[in-house]
Amino acid sequence: MKEIDLRSDTVTRPTKEMLQAIMTAPVGDDVYKEDPTVNKLEQKLADMFGMDEALFFPTGSMANQAGIKLHTQPGEQLICDKWAHVYNYEGGGVSFNSGVSCKLVDGDRGMITAKQVEESINPPDFYHSPLTSLVCLENTTNKGGGACYDLEEVKKIRKVCDRHGLGLHLDGARLFNAIVKNDEDPKTYGKIFDTISVCLSKGLGTPMGSVLLGKRDLMKNAIRVRKVLGGGMRQVGFMAAAGIYALDNHLGQLKKDNERASEIARQLDDLSYIGKVEPVETNIIIFYLKDPEDESKFIDELSKENIRISNMGQGKLRIVTHLDYSEEMHLHFQKVLRGIAL
Amino acid sequence: MKEIDLRSDTVTRPTKEMLQAIMTAPVGDDVYKEDPTVNKLEQKLADMFGMDEALFFPTGSMANQAGIKLHTQPGEQLICDKWAHVYNYEGGGVSFNSGVSCKLVDGDRGMITAKQVEESINPPDFYHSPLTSLVCLENTTNKGGGACYDLEEVKKIRKVCDRHGLGLHLDGARLFNAIVKNDEDPKTYGKIFDTISVCLSKGLGTPMGSVLLGKRDLMKNAIRVRKVLGGGMRQVGFMAAAGIYALDNHLGQLKKDNERASEIARQLDDLSYIGKVEPVETNIIIFYLKDPEDESKFIDELSKENIRISNMGQGKLRIVTHLDYSEEMHLHFQKVLRGIAL
Amino acid sequence: MKEIDLRSDTVTRPTKEMLQAIMTAPVGDDVYKEDPTVNKLEQKLADMFGMDEALFFPTGSMANQAGIKLHTQPGEQLICDKWAHVYNYEGGGVSFNSGVSCKLVDGDRGMITAKQVEESINPPDFYHSPLTSLVCLENTTNKGGGACYDLEEVKKIRKVCDRHGLGLHLDGARLFNAIVKNDEDPKTYGKIFDTISVCLSKGLGTPMGSVLLGKRDLMKNAIRVRKVLGGGMRQVGFMAAAGIYALDNHLGQLKKDNERASEIARQLDDLSYIGKVEPVETNIIIFYLKDPEDESKFIDELSKENIRISNMGQGKLRIVTHLDYSEEMHLHFQKVLRGIAL
Amino acid sequence: MKEIDLRSDTVTRPTKEMLQAIMTAPVGDDVYKEDPTVNKLEQKLADMFGMDEALFFPTGSMANQAGIKLHTQPGEQLICDKWAHVYNYEGGGVSFNSGVSCKLVDGDRGMITAKQVEESINPPDFYHSPLTSLVCLENTTNKGGGACYDLEEVKKIRKVCDRHGLGLHLDGARLFNAIVKNDEDPKTYGKIFDTISVCLSKGLGTPMGSVLLGKRDLMKNAIRVRKVLGGGMRQVGFMAAAGIYALDNHLGQLKKDNERASEIARQLDDLSYIGKVEPVETNIIIFYLKDPEDESKFIDELSKENIRISNMGQGKLRIVTHLDYSEEMHLHFQKVLRGIAL
Repeated sequence: MKEIDLRSDTVTRPTKEMLQAIMTAPVGDDVYKEDPTVNKLEQKLADMFGMDEALFFPTGSMANQAGIKLHTQPGEQLICDKWAHVYNYEGGGVSFNSGVSCKLVDGDRGMITAKQVEESINPPDFYHSPLTSLVCLENTTNKGGGACYDLEEVKKIRKVCDRHGLGLHLDGARLFNAIVKNDEDPKTYGKIFDTISVCLSKGLGTPMGSVLLGKRDLMKNAIRVRKVLGGGMRQVGFMAAAGIYALDNHLGQLKKDNERASEIARQLDDLSYIGKVEPVETNIIIFYLKDPEDESKFIDELSKENIRISNMGQGKLRIVTHLDYSEEMHLHFQKVLRGIAL
Repeated sequence: MKEIDLRSDTVTRPTKEMLQAIMTAPVGDDVYKEDPTVNKLEQKLADMFGMDEALFFPTGSMANQAGIKLHTQPGEQLICDKWAHVYNYEGGGVSFNSGVSCKLVDGDRGMITAKQVEESINPPDFYHSPLTSLVCLENTTNKGGGACYDLEEVKKIRKVCDRHGLGLHLDGARLFNAIVKNDEDPKTYGKIFDTISVCLSKGLGTPMGSVLLGKRDLMKNAIRVRKVLGGGMRQVGFMAAAGIYALDNHLGQLKKDNERASEIARQLDDLSYIGKVEPVETNIIIFYLKDPEDESKFIDELSKENIRISNMGQGKLRIVTHLDYSEEMHLHFQKVLRGIAL
Repeated sequence: MKEIDLRSDTVTRPTKEMLQAIMTAPVGDDVYKEDPTVNKLEQKLADMFGMDEALFFPTGSMANQAGIKLHTQPGEQLICDKWAHVYNYEGGGVSFNSGVSCKLVDGDRGMITAKQVEESINPPDFYHSPLTSLVCLENTTNKGGGACYDLEEVKKIRKVCDRHGLGLHLDGARLFNAIVKNDEDPKTYGKIFDTISVCLSKGLGTPMGSVLLGKRDLMKNAIRVRKVLGGGMRQVGFMAAAGIYALDNHLGQLKKDNERASEIARQLDDLSYIGKVEPVETNIIIFYLKDPEDESKFIDELSKENIRISNMGQGKLRIVTHLDYSEEMHLHFQKVLRGIAL
Repeated sequence: MKEIDLRSDTVTRPTKEMLQAIMTAPVGDDVYKEDPTVNKLEQKLADMFGMDEALFFPTGSMANQAGIKLHTQPGEQLICDKWAHVYNYEGGGVSFNSGVSCKLVDGDRGMITAKQVEESINPPDFYHSPLTSLVCLENTTNKGGGACYDLEEVKKIRKVCDRHGLGLHLDGARLFNAIVKNDEDPKTYGKIFDTISVCLSKGLGTPMGSVLLGKRDLMKNAIRVRKVLGGGMRQVGFMAAAGIYALDNHLGQLKKDNERASEIARQLDDLSYIGKVEPVETNIIIFYLKDPEDESKFIDELSKENIRISNMGQGKLRIVTHLDYSEEMHLHFQKVLRGIAL
């Protein structure tokens, strides 16, 4: 059996058809904004979400960081969940790139409420505290185990933002998993958020790239910010072509990823050596071994079967399903799990 | 009765004797390091704490911010309590001046433990997370209500820092209140910490100024950092003279401030309209009204008697005793408190 | 003879009368904006220059740096002379504090023209280049030898700024020397510039402090910027009182400083061992020895007579006259110069 | 005739063979450093230059900016030519990303001398000035018209750096044009410089990507800096494969580009309507029209023939030859030039 890599949905390799789309893409110099395929991808996503502008970035981290920069001045503060990717896993970029601090909210599996947002806003005329200027949500949540926001709560958060003059950014690294799961219209997101980053190289399975979507007045500086961060690439239409292909062909597959994750979770729940399994809503399963001391043995057993999963620190283990995780692998993995004795 | 200002111990005005010390101080241009009084104050504090170097700053915020800058590179992370002054009340300076983020620990009245520090360190080779490089403690704690660290715990934190190669900075805005309270030797602090900021314009009663103390290798860049932040002043020996005077004459008074705070706390505890009163260790009393709705009425009643206290947000009220809060005021304030009916 | 310190006009010590003004000043906590003397000084300068707002800072560097921050976003560019103090002598603060770069103009003794400004503006839609957003002038120029701008040229620069949407900041560290020299109305400056820093501790002779003046919409964030840089002091009215006294009593003296500088320059011109003497307009004399190798001998000879002057690097020497340079010292210094044989 | 795009050598599209190499590349997740093709490219370039480490970046701007960050702390200063790409065309990134300022040297066609470097170093103990910590050279020079450094001068600059403890970075966006032109050994560069960026999407003709090469102690933080800037991509081996192919197959073509540029320059020299033509050493021709007013007419005439060239501002025009500029195009372009009458 080939390696079964369940560490992240970033590990996928393009299908033959996607490679074909890459090969045949017309390209140009995107620094001059003359790459027709990049332009087409940007337009396609702007249309899909009903947003004014879209810009292609090499990575989701840069798309998020640029979004944050567009909303903030140094010294200001953004509000996010204590587990937010922008705070924890982007190398300290919020402070490095934007000089901004994070007010951390103690949310539920990475999701925060309108009430928590409202309570986290610093009084704007008390100049000892950083000026609150932005709220960042994540959907689905990464460290929160792929949990999805209830859009009604998100609309309430929008209202709090409006009342206090705050921007609202969505880290949509796995947004399509939520959209597919809950059968949502991307335009609903476009209406609520000022800026949204969506990633093409996770569930959608492209080699690289993310797109930042946003309102015109914010996005007018996006290309400058992308330039200064070093994100202005040349004939990158090859990579954008993979994104167009994925949007046309891979969205359906996300449903499959979500289902397989649920099946794995159910099985884990039944295994004697597994402790808590977090509720699974999309393609991420977060769980704990009954005895944390078994961790390395468990990982070893999987390793012998050429299976890799992720260690999130603080005793958490993580499995992520994706496009390259086939039905055959799924059956094999379940069999392996059943066979392990700790 | 004159105004009784209990909002903060920063509101004090110099005594006649301190003014005399100011007037007669020999001064020079401190940018050239030729102000004999500034130099004398710096030497005096370095000696008192047994530290290599000392540098005078216009404010405690700048002394803290410079200390943090000396320890860190942009993108790195410091560990502090969730209520830390450096995170909450220095205008977002940690991120603005140093590009650094804060890992917030859920401490006890602003104090954190060695165990919590150890658990908050990001794995140094996991480059997605900010590199942890500094721990900042506060003694006494401001928003924690003047609580004092147990030095044994601080020594354990030092050991964690040593094991992980982290710097250790002390925000000593009210350090002298702790030293007087617990009869500590300043040199103990000098041995534990890499850098310490001490404030002269709080309990010590000078018009302005703080001093950053530190080890030689860190402090060699302190004057550069002070310059770039705009803290290099000229004949500021006048203000330093007040500091020398205060160190020679006002340390004893801090005991009085601490005692009066305890007396006020005991009285508050007895009042029917007062809810929780935080334990009082030094000169800060944090308490809650039984009914938060009474807040403005309570503040009004005090205001009629020309008494001012502080509203810390989130329903907290704060009283701080200080050099300008006399025995006469103390008796009057207690009488007023007894007379209020909510 | 007492030391004659001609290195800078920052070395002055307060007169007895100024000390009296310091002693008797009513003060309060300026962080709460309750220091009546600071407030009075700010109002006095705002009125004098006909500007909306004024804010007291510990140093001129911080006043300049805050002014620059109020006008700019990180990544942008300001235009200034290649010798500008903000670029050369504020510790790299433009980039450190504001993330801003400098387009350096090859001016005349530190002064630049409207034509040079216009040619230095980057095309705003060419996002490869930093966005030009600010012009900084210096009057009088420091490294330019106290040269004064022709206000007609400054008005032309204002027009260029208006045409291109640029801010205009004046580093007025020695602005009063220019105002006195050319008998100008401070309100003319207030009409032209968006922000102006004026220094109280150079020609005016106070121990410390500068004031930033500006238009309301810019200045509304000034107190936040001052806070984050660590410039929010407490009972600093003592120092502000010196500023009020100086504005009331010392402006006339600047004429004397300017005259003595001219007399020294004329004498230098006549000395066989002196090379070029830059034209002297105010209180700074920049000159060169005929033989650069004589530099240390020349400085030694002066030193024997307890006279100190400044070495500006690159072979330049600098003399600055000031309030503490008396007629007696002036006569003695001229005698010493005549007596030196190189 | 197809469009002849001479604006830049960044406009090239991959050949069929390069596309084949892209299609067949084995890939993995480069964030985990598991992309074999990226790893192979990095190793190949490290070996070619005899340097310790190499890291792939999405763009040359990010490779340069990361290099600068690895050498500097905020507030410091780097020395470069006044026309340097890092100062002029990377969006103000030196200040935005690193908080660093540039000391601009008045070089010769973008090249500076050891003597100029030495004179530009700020005295390290004069803390008013930024601390000089880095020298950045560019070879070939972009705005300097593809001029190549004499390696003897570069070695002298290295010695100045060693004497003063400065780092030395090479912006090698078009380094291969110089290496081919002067028949140099890449290892010579590896010995002289601490860090080198080389670009794959200019003369080498790949769609995107640059590589930063450097000494081990500097490069140990490179992956962190790449992460925080948002440059950590996934299956980007597809693009790296193009780089490997280009290094194996396209270096020779650069000679052709250089020769055609010389031929164009000679022809321009003979044309009555052309003013100064800068000396051509590699693949860039910078020239001026005799009458600047003819600029738009000249560009129009070329446009009619489907030929595009670049306007560098301040009256300069620029032509860059490259892989997609064929012999047929070359003959046609020369014919068109002869036919224009201004």
